[in-house]
Amino acid sequence: MGHSYRNGVLIVFALSVSAWLFPGSPPAAPGDDAGLLKQAKELLGRLPTVISSSANPVTPARAALGKMLFYETRISVDGTVSCVRCHPFSLYGADGLRKSVGHDARPNPRNAPTVLNAAGQISAHWTGNRKDVEDQAEQAVVGPASFGMPSSEAAEKKLRGIAAYGPLFERAFPGDPSPVSIGNFARAVGAFERTLVTPSPFDGFIGGDGKALGEAEKLGLRQFISAGCVSCHSGVYVGGGMYEKFGVYEPYWTYTKSPEIDEGRFTVTKSEGDKYVFKVPGLRNVEMTSPYFHDGSVDRLPDAVRVMGRVQLGKTLGDGEVGTIVSFLKSLTGRIPADALLVPILPRTD
Amino acid sequence: MGHSYRNGVLIVFALSVSAWLFPGSPPAAPGDDAGLLKQAKELLGRLPTVISSSANPVTPARAALGKMLFYETRISVDGTVSCVRCHPFSLYGADGLRKSVGHDARPNPRNAPTVLNAAGQISAHWTGNRKDVEDQAEQAVVGPASFGMPSSEAAEKKLRGIAAYGPLFERAFPGDPSPVSIGNFARAVGAFERTLVTPSPFDGFIGGDGKALGEAEKLGLRQFISAGCVSCHSGVYVGGGMYEKFGVYEPYWTYTKSPEIDEGRFTVTKSEGDKYVFKVPGLRNVEMTSPYFHDGSVDRLPDAVRVMGRVQLGKTLGDGEVGTIVSFLKSLTGRIPADALLVPILPRTD
Repeated sequence: MGHSYRNGVLIVFALSVSAWLFPGSPPAAPGDDAGLLKQAKELLGRLPTVISSSANPVTPARAALGKMLFYETRISVDGTVSCVRCHPFSLYGADGLRKSVGHDARPNPRNAPTVLNAAGQISAHWTGNRKDVEDQAEQAVVGPASFGMPSSEAAEKKLRGIAAYGPLFERAFPGDPSPVSIGNFARAVGAFERTLVTPSPFDGFIGGDGKALGEAEKLGLRQFISAGCVSCHSGVYVGGGMYEKFGVYEPYWTYTKSPEIDEGRFTVTKSEGDKYVFKVPGLRNVEMTSPYFHDGSVDRLPDAVRVMGRVQLGKTLGDGEVGTIVSFLKSLTGRIPADALLVPILPRTD
Repeated sequence: MGHSYRNGVLIVFALSVSAWLFPGSPPAAPGDDAGLLKQAKELLGRLPTVISSSANPVTPARAALGKMLFYETRISVDGTVSCVRCHPFSLYGADGLRKSVGHDARPNPRNAPTVLNAAGQISAHWTGNRKDVEDQAEQAVVGPASFGMPSSEAAEKKLRGIAAYGPLFERAFPGDPSPVSIGNFARAVGAFERTLVTPSPFDGFIGGDGKALGEAEKLGLRQFISAGCVSCHSGVYVGGGMYEKFGVYEPYWTYTKSPEIDEGRFTVTKSEGDKYVFKVPGLRNVEMTSPYFHDGSVDRLPDAVRVMGRVQLGKTLGDGEVGTIVSFLKSLTGRIPADALLVPILPRTD
């Protein structure tokens, strides 16, 4: 209540910003839940039940095999690395580290993004150097800072050494004359990851349940839209749909205090315009996946919101605004599918 | 059927061995299921539902907290190690490695024993250098090849940094004026581990269900008793109750081909009589916890049985005998408690 005057001023200011950003769709006024819902549907959206792919159809057999392989350490070079190492569900599909650590304690160049809802994004990883979740899984096997195998063939040999996988691959890839392959490992893992969608209170709201969000969360959603966050963090995954320069107004490291400067997508494309460009991360479950940014340089979510205000929007967000935006962001914390939380038992050799 | 003559001869031979081993209890004759049951009850036994401890009572709050802490990487020196790293349930509470790997890829001196049913054994680890599961958990935090923290105090500070644990420790340790401590971390993890019992078909048999074991498994149980395996692998955990020299008849490394010679319990007691002495491992779930022995030097269960025959019993077990003993050992593969297979979600800091 004490913030209503200041919030009013901010909203008036923000209205003009977002009228410019969304000329066809003026922001919903406070109290106008129907307008807010309409806007949220247009700008964001409700999660699907499965993130489908025509290239990699999600069948129960394929996803179940993929879950086993997600836990399979025995195909890594030192027998200690599997997908779940950097993406444990206990930490919402990320690992809580600034930068992940692969085989033989090798540091990864960047923070592990959560695997939850990841399949719906334009690419995997921060710089777009992995086409999709299947490509990510396939490359991780030979990644020097992940599984560390010298080649796909060597990993395939290890996989074939666990004979009980044979029938499971056959069932997951019917008609494939040579089903036990790293390509199919990646497809199975990808199919499992395509089931990792996490419906949240926000999806209840988008589905028409006005009570699914509280007043602070709705106000936060309004501010998320009107402050301009949604201009990049848009779509069903509240981000993950585009690349953007990190540091539109000022260099990001001025605020993140990053110990190293990462040139982002430039490292992939070598195009000058891609310097400091990263994939806009999806914000679903962001409450549960600290630390933040490509280098995990910021520990707390309110601080991350403040950094974004400064370097992406050129504004200093007030404590009240940060607090309500964080309230909205917490409404994006969803339920991990029950099946994903159930540890698979892996086959043994006799 | 082709083996019946040879098996008969072996059983006759074995009868004399085990009449010597168990003078009060002559081995049950083939077909005498009631006799076999009586003997199995005397020599082995049925699992409890929880492995209780008067020093560390298992309450639901304590075990639930312990399960979370079992997954907690954030109190390790590099943020990558938790109990589950060496004891994933996907591999039946062991890690499938010859020797485990701790923080910064540091090798452990020995193979990780499964955490399943471990709380019922006389000590934790291979050489008795950990008093019980609580002691093991407490020492792992500062273990140079496990969590690697410089001190308990430093680990405690990290634990206190995750504020949401406070109320959970209070509930698990009511009346404790300073509940968030590494001592209580160890008690909670221990309480969780005391719930990790895995009832198997063998327990059905011990419970009086004669059909719970097939004929090969019952024959294997007979041979396990008559060959003398049970003289060390006895009690409810089919081992885990005593220390024994590995290599009674011949040095173990002659058969395991171990690349290094481990002096076992001698490294703890410095007593000459403890050279090459190890804790007799419990054999429950042995099918699922390869590779075998303190150094993981043997990959396949039948080979491990052969090695034991040579070095512990001074005999060359035939293929048929090995096969039926393995059949019996597989009847010790139990069900991991459903709750233990459900990944806990860990609290985050704001």
